Amino acid sequence: MKSPIPDYLNAVLERVRPIEDGAPAQYIKTLANADTSKLGVALVMVDGNIYSAGDDTVEFSIQSISKAFVYAIAIEDAGLERVLEKIGVEPSGDAFNKLSLHKDNNRPMNPMINAGAIAAHSLVVHANATAEERTERILNTLSRLAGRTLYVDEEVYEAELADADRNMGIGYMLKAAGIISCRPAEVVKGYIRQCSINVNVRDLAMMAATLCNAGVNPVTGETIMPADSVRQVLSVMTTCGMYDAAGSWVSRVGIPAKSGVAGGIIGALPGQVGIAAFSPKLNERGNSVRAVALFEHLSHDMGFHMMDVSQIARASVSTAVAKIVAGSQKEPHHPNCDRRVVIFALRGAVRFAGSERLTRAIVRELGEPDPRDPGSGEHRDACAVVVSLRDAFSLNPVARRVIHESIKRLLAEDKTVVVIDPNGVLQMDLGSSLSSTGLRPQVVQNEIEAKEFIGGAGCSAVIQSDSW
Amino acid sequence: MKSPIPDYLNAVLERVRPIEDGAPAQYIKTLANADTSKLGVALVMVDGNIYSAGDDTVEFSIQSISKAFVYAIAIEDAGLERVLEKIGVEPSGDAFNKLSLHKDNNRPMNPMINAGAIAAHSLVVHANATAEERTERILNTLSRLAGRTLYVDEEVYEAELADADRNMGIGYMLKAAGIISCRPAEVVKGYIRQCSINVNVRDLAMMAATLCNAGVNPVTGETIMPADSVRQVLSVMTTCGMYDAAGSWVSRVGIPAKSGVAGGIIGALPGQVGIAAFSPKLNERGNSVRAVALFEHLSHDMGFHMMDVSQIARASVSTAVAKIVAGSQKEPHHPNCDRRVVIFALRGAVRFAGSERLTRAIVRELGEPDPRDPGSGEHRDACAVVVSLRDAFSLNPVARRVIHESIKRLLAEDKTVVVIDPNGVLQMDLGSSLSSTGLRPQVVQNEIEAKEFIGGAGCSAVIQSDSW
Amino acid sequence: MKSPIPDYLNAVLERVRPIEDGAPAQYIKTLANADTSKLGVALVMVDGNIYSAGDDTVEFSIQSISKAFVYAIAIEDAGLERVLEKIGVEPSGDAFNKLSLHKDNNRPMNPMINAGAIAAHSLVVHANATAEERTERILNTLSRLAGRTLYVDEEVYEAELADADRNMGIGYMLKAAGIISCRPAEVVKGYIRQCSINVNVRDLAMMAATLCNAGVNPVTGETIMPADSVRQVLSVMTTCGMYDAAGSWVSRVGIPAKSGVAGGIIGALPGQVGIAAFSPKLNERGNSVRAVALFEHLSHDMGFHMMDVSQIARASVSTAVAKIVAGSQKEPHHPNCDRRVVIFALRGAVRFAGSERLTRAIVRELGEPDPRDPGSGEHRDACAVVVSLRDAFSLNPVARRVIHESIKRLLAEDKTVVVIDPNGVLQMDLGSSLSSTGLRPQVVQNEIEAKEFIGGAGCSAVIQSDSW
Amino acid sequence: MKSPIPDYLNAVLERVRPIEDGAPAQYIKTLANADTSKLGVALVMVDGNIYSAGDDTVEFSIQSISKAFVYAIAIEDAGLERVLEKIGVEPSGDAFNKLSLHKDNNRPMNPMINAGAIAAHSLVVHANATAEERTERILNTLSRLAGRTLYVDEEVYEAELADADRNMGIGYMLKAAGIISCRPAEVVKGYIRQCSINVNVRDLAMMAATLCNAGVNPVTGETIMPADSVRQVLSVMTTCGMYDAAGSWVSRVGIPAKSGVAGGIIGALPGQVGIAAFSPKLNERGNSVRAVALFEHLSHDMGFHMMDVSQIARASVSTAVAKIVAGSQKEPHHPNCDRRVVIFALRGAVRFAGSERLTRAIVRELGEPDPRDPGSGEHRDACAVVVSLRDAFSLNPVARRVIHESIKRLLAEDKTVVVIDPNGVLQMDLGSSLSSTGLRPQVVQNEIEAKEFIGGAGCSAVIQSDSW
Repeated sequence: MKSPIPDYLNAVLERVRPIEDGAPAQYIKTLANADTSKLGVALVMVDGNIYSAGDDTVEFSIQSISKAFVYAIAIEDAGLERVLEKIGVEPSGDAFNKLSLHKDNNRPMNPMINAGAIAAHSLVVHANATAEERTERILNTLSRLAGRTLYVDEEVYEAELADADRNMGIGYMLKAAGIISCRPAEVVKGYIRQCSINVNVRDLAMMAATLCNAGVNPVTGETIMPADSVRQVLSVMTTCGMYDAAGSWVSRVGIPAKSGVAGGIIGALPGQVGIAAFSPKLNERGNSVRAVALFEHLSHDMGFHMMDVSQIARASVSTAVAKIVAGSQKEPHHPNCDRRVVIFALRGAVRFAGSERLTRAIVRELGEPDPRDPGSGEHRDACAVVVSLRDAFSLNPVARRVIHESIKRLLAEDKTVVVIDPNGVLQMDLGSSLSSTGLRPQVVQNEIEAKEFIGGAGCSAVIQSDSW
Repeated sequence: MKSPIPDYLNAVLERVRPIEDGAPAQYIKTLANADTSKLGVALVMVDGNIYSAGDDTVEFSIQSISKAFVYAIAIEDAGLERVLEKIGVEPSGDAFNKLSLHKDNNRPMNPMINAGAIAAHSLVVHANATAEERTERILNTLSRLAGRTLYVDEEVYEAELADADRNMGIGYMLKAAGIISCRPAEVVKGYIRQCSINVNVRDLAMMAATLCNAGVNPVTGETIMPADSVRQVLSVMTTCGMYDAAGSWVSRVGIPAKSGVAGGIIGALPGQVGIAAFSPKLNERGNSVRAVALFEHLSHDMGFHMMDVSQIARASVSTAVAKIVAGSQKEPHHPNCDRRVVIFALRGAVRFAGSERLTRAIVRELGEPDPRDPGSGEHRDACAVVVSLRDAFSLNPVARRVIHESIKRLLAEDKTVVVIDPNGVLQMDLGSSLSSTGLRPQVVQNEIEAKEFIGGAGCSAVIQSDSW
Repeated sequence: MKSPIPDYLNAVLERVRPIEDGAPAQYIKTLANADTSKLGVALVMVDGNIYSAGDDTVEFSIQSISKAFVYAIAIEDAGLERVLEKIGVEPSGDAFNKLSLHKDNNRPMNPMINAGAIAAHSLVVHANATAEERTERILNTLSRLAGRTLYVDEEVYEAELADADRNMGIGYMLKAAGIISCRPAEVVKGYIRQCSINVNVRDLAMMAATLCNAGVNPVTGETIMPADSVRQVLSVMTTCGMYDAAGSWVSRVGIPAKSGVAGGIIGALPGQVGIAAFSPKLNERGNSVRAVALFEHLSHDMGFHMMDVSQIARASVSTAVAKIVAGSQKEPHHPNCDRRVVIFALRGAVRFAGSERLTRAIVRELGEPDPRDPGSGEHRDACAVVVSLRDAFSLNPVARRVIHESIKRLLAEDKTVVVIDPNGVLQMDLGSSLSSTGLRPQVVQNEIEAKEFIGGAGCSAVIQSDSW
Repeated sequence: MKSPIPDYLNAVLERVRPIEDGAPAQYIKTLANADTSKLGVALVMVDGNIYSAGDDTVEFSIQSISKAFVYAIAIEDAGLERVLEKIGVEPSGDAFNKLSLHKDNNRPMNPMINAGAIAAHSLVVHANATAEERTERILNTLSRLAGRTLYVDEEVYEAELADADRNMGIGYMLKAAGIISCRPAEVVKGYIRQCSINVNVRDLAMMAATLCNAGVNPVTGETIMPADSVRQVLSVMTTCGMYDAAGSWVSRVGIPAKSGVAGGIIGALPGQVGIAAFSPKLNERGNSVRAVALFEHLSHDMGFHMMDVSQIARASVSTAVAKIVAGSQKEPHHPNCDRRVVIFALRGAVRFAGSERLTRAIVRELGEPDPRDPGSGEHRDACAVVVSLRDAFSLNPVARRVIHESIKRLLAEDKTVVVIDPNGVLQMDLGSSLSSTGLRPQVVQNEIEAKEFIGGAGCSAVIQSDSW
């Protein structure tokens, strides 16, 4: 059997191929002479699986798409606080090459317009870094994001440099406004160099997937950016990525995105998929006409909209109750209990909602009876609780805190608590409130060990459980 | 055991309680005289479980928070296309009571400013509806969203009406601009009535949770709004809900939200949780100071940020292979096959990513061998494929299409395909490409039936499978 | 002989008649159905002489042209200070029907946009005046400005009232903003009534000429507006009269002006001429296309540009010296003087520059000798000074002050000073510094009296003077 | 006697001296360290007479005041059309150092903001001129305007150059926008050099007076700028000279003006007076606080407001009728006439209004009788007409055309026409419609010649005339 997904991508390409509106960017020859028939698309799943179609290996300059990644680098190098001091996060309603400095504080409105991007570039490495150091830092990071060595297209670079009056103007204005502290001409050169890096749609989709994957390249497994920077970048892409129609893009497409004047657009749907599309003809806003159409189709056809509510965080907790059979060779740890064991199994990537479900289930079974909820509190005298995280492949920090807290409370009530955590997602040692008490649950690798710990050989007689 | 979540909510309340900045709205006496010590918060999970703390039953007027829900009603009553003709979706950068009509087409910039909200109100029911019909429609819908009967606070209504010059001005301007077609004074009265509906934080959190839950009230189970309207409302709340700082709210808090001048704020994190907070003192933008602080804490502490990438859509597919034991009484349906059965189990709320994982797994096992991937194509001669959706509690449309397509392709290769779908999530009859072919998989309720269909009584001898 | 001026006006009409661009205002039927072939122009000199050509008696509604005059009435009725509190004087750069309230203080940007004009209307008579009182006041004043009884076109009024949504909107916004204090609907009705007054180009040119003539109707001689109000109105017409292109109008045409949507435009060149033109087709800014063209021709052909520097305030002082012949029957008043009399004659409408020239001439003849200026100080021992104002038909206040001061200084040096002032322009009694001293010059009606006062019958022998 | 005018100026200085608000410009040391006690004022009448008071010889850098004059030079060197293509004439409402490019065409809003001034500088000499050529041209022109050799303050220049980031930014932006075509850095250097020229208030008042005097330095008599450029400069000073409050300045002060950051302000009241004031402390708009106050006092006290209507263009024509006495030795040229001669005398600087008065007088005496005007047409059979221009010291072009046309019409009716024009103001040979006909009036130097031409020796018997 062959996968239908490449077929779908090919079909979508054919749907947008007939669109002949727009024109390639004219300001430099390399872009103006681009082969406008080129058209490519790529998806990278957050586990690194890649699908692509069309001209997926044709290279083009990254241009403004670099702004998203360099903003992340600036946050890492200068700290979020300093970056926010120098660059705002508001949509400007202006074209990308407008100055758009905020009236009160001179800050560029956001890092996706040129002024903000040049300011972000100046924050890479450190204030006194050379253009070479900055270029090196950026080229290296972008290569690791793409999973292959990228390089600057020197022809594009030279042409852009020869036509850099507006950016040079912006650079001097930023210097005058106290936003950048180094020499304007140097920063602008570095910025142009960053924009002249060559990529293809597969590279870009991988880079976007790394954002979706919390900064970890899903193929190499390398953590390239801290999750906080990624969240900030995705937020800004949401409101400022597609220039002067933030609201329209969010409601029609709903994918945090960034476009470049060479015809590329990336989209990053957090936790799901990185997307890239490419075709050289631009609309009057400087976004590739066909790539925009591709994103609209993908959003509509694939449910790729961040406000799509079809993935509702539902029941991922199952509850079972087992009984330690009388006469087992080994006595249970807590001789006074009624020999009942309550088992909770949590599945998936657990955030607050999952931990809340677990907590709620525990409270229902082992808390005070609630007169409105028949059966609640039924197992409050159970001697042991098993929390199985075997199928929980991740916990985010709040989920971890909530589960720690629940376990702490069970232990405080003298319950035996066993956690099945073969993947170590509970991270009990990482400074939680749990680890600071003397009380600790027993952590085991699998059900066998759990049963052994609770009931000795008698555990083979555990009954009334379909999951155990 | 008691749940730690209410404790957390109480703790957060105490953290924001000392904030004494701001002042209640002054323009009408009821608001100006509000008890500024009041402070409440509520969370409603998408399955309807509610947590609340503080003054969670104190009632206050819904005010501008109604704009979000009435926008959804307008979309339902007039159609999205017509609504977009009359009201934009762009952040205005202006205060809520500014006119902010778009220069080119006179449209109010978005439905969250007064001009847009009044226009949205005029689209409820139909163009010639009376104020009573519109109020009735809105009050009824908001009550179903909240899960209890809401009512208009007549004292607030009368006071607002006596101070309605600005809104009356907006109404006439909208009429002049061709945005509304009924009598301005009537529309403004209806709009003020809509704003004067009383709620408490538990109501608001339930209403928000209904948005998070794709328009279905998670307690009553009633579908109150179509999913498309909900997506549109959440999109607009994302970029326009908190007035003139869209970018800052998205990056700092990251929860689609809407505030009201009585001190309420709702937040709706799609698929996760509905939130409401309340305290009367407002900042200069008209947002409750303490409620904003509460949202900041919740976003930070609970990972409630829509760009939080901690829930990554990972492997929710497990694969197993079983063998039909020789000598079983009943011959397999496909006598020429090698008696191998490949079983794929999909879990959770499945969107594209999940269906992609399933498809990828099928292709790996039953597709052409890939020299770079040892073991791939190993089971291409298997006689039967089982797709278990027992643990898949929902499929979104694209996931359904992808799975249909994959099953179609397997059937076309003459495989026996059995789908375990006790919940009916695959919806084979709903006009998919699959249902239009003569080929259909066998759909069964559980594993026993699946085994019986494939192998007769001999299925009890199926081996080599840890999940079967 | 026939005057060439009507011929010129006719010739200009023929130059602009072929212009067929634009369209009449469409919003009410009376305007939409206007006879677009109509074309008229009128000039009124500041002495009341009128020239007109084309359709100079065709009536049309005054519309926004009324704004200029009602602003003046508001200043008179409410005081300039209060008017400035409520209405700004800055060009808005917006269309006439935009709200254009100033961000900081809610004031309409200027009285020439609708918002400012409605605010000005509300200040007429007093805050609690009825619509009838205001209409009566305005209709009466406009009639006196035009020199004939004007009336409201009730058909236009009714039609405008039926289409008043935008103005009604503005009215409510102004009420909400605290700019107007009476009922919005009443003010808007009065404003519409004011706009519906019918006029022809001869009326308008007379009204404009009254502005040019310091508020005095040049035909009836009635003082209709104080000079201060007139100055304010002309200033605002300069920067705000022609809507959104203040700078362009000032540099191309240079005539303080105001246009109306029925096709009329007035221009008022201070101290020179009132102009009106009319033709119904409007450009996209709402100004009559042909009337604009007429103004451009008039400005260019006639030197009607306020920055035209061809009338330079030059020498209007003549100096003569006479000698009292020895042996006259009557001794001169100052026996010790050398019998020389210095006569200074001042001509024209004297402002500072004229008084400065007089003073300079006096200082040169009777002051200390200046070594760099041979002949200066030559007559410092003259016994008498005659200042002839026979040909000075007006003095403005500063000129009067300067001349008073100079005379005071001469008297303080014990000179005999005789002023020939048949028109009483020197106004010695009006609280000047001069009148407060005991010293006073002798004021006479003509040269004969002057000569008699100085020299008795011997004055007939005065010689060495070409002007005496 | 001493002139009271210097005393007045000294008194005004003392009124503003106590104002201690504001601070000198801080961005360069020379300005920051300015002696803030300095305060000076100067007036130059359009005939070159100068008054000054206070620190009238203290030098300071001209700064932005140069913009007005360099704009005039640019108009002369590049032509008005090209200048208007590159630089607008609208007030920007922005601070002086904002970019303020017009959205549609990239033009700087006006030549008084830095962007427009830099663009104007680039148009001086020609597009490829060197910075030296431009500086030379500007320095030379400004020196001729001031009437003394000015020089660049090299210390100021160097300091400004070291702090030129914003202007450099503007320069590059203008290059990018296609407004300037030469190297940005060169233009900015030249612009800074232009701003660093040193002047005192006497220089500035003389430069302003040259504008008031139609481009002719009133002392040297040199024509430095064409009248058209001057009109354009004064127009732009009116609407854009005082930055972001055009309307307020026009209505409060009413003097076309321009300020500089070193504390100078010039004002030019067309046809009347050039003004300059200086004191280093600036308000938040960058205008000298005391100099603004001085202008307000001067406008109020001296009637220096361009909308002041106290100088109304009144009767400057006198009419007389004489009779050629019977029995004179010489027969009149036109033997059939009734021997009456009508004499018209015109005075002053004649613009349209004066010529209109003359024409009206001629028509009244020699046209058809008007039944409504008893006495009109009484002298229609007069044999000769004398037009005396002895006291008319200038005619503007339109006045000249009107008088030419009137004379042509009289000649066409076979009247003898004699013009007394000792100053040659009628310029009959300059391509008028009159000169193109065969008909010509007799032009003479004085009344004697006029009488001789009309009546021979008998003219001594001319009677019935008080002016003849």
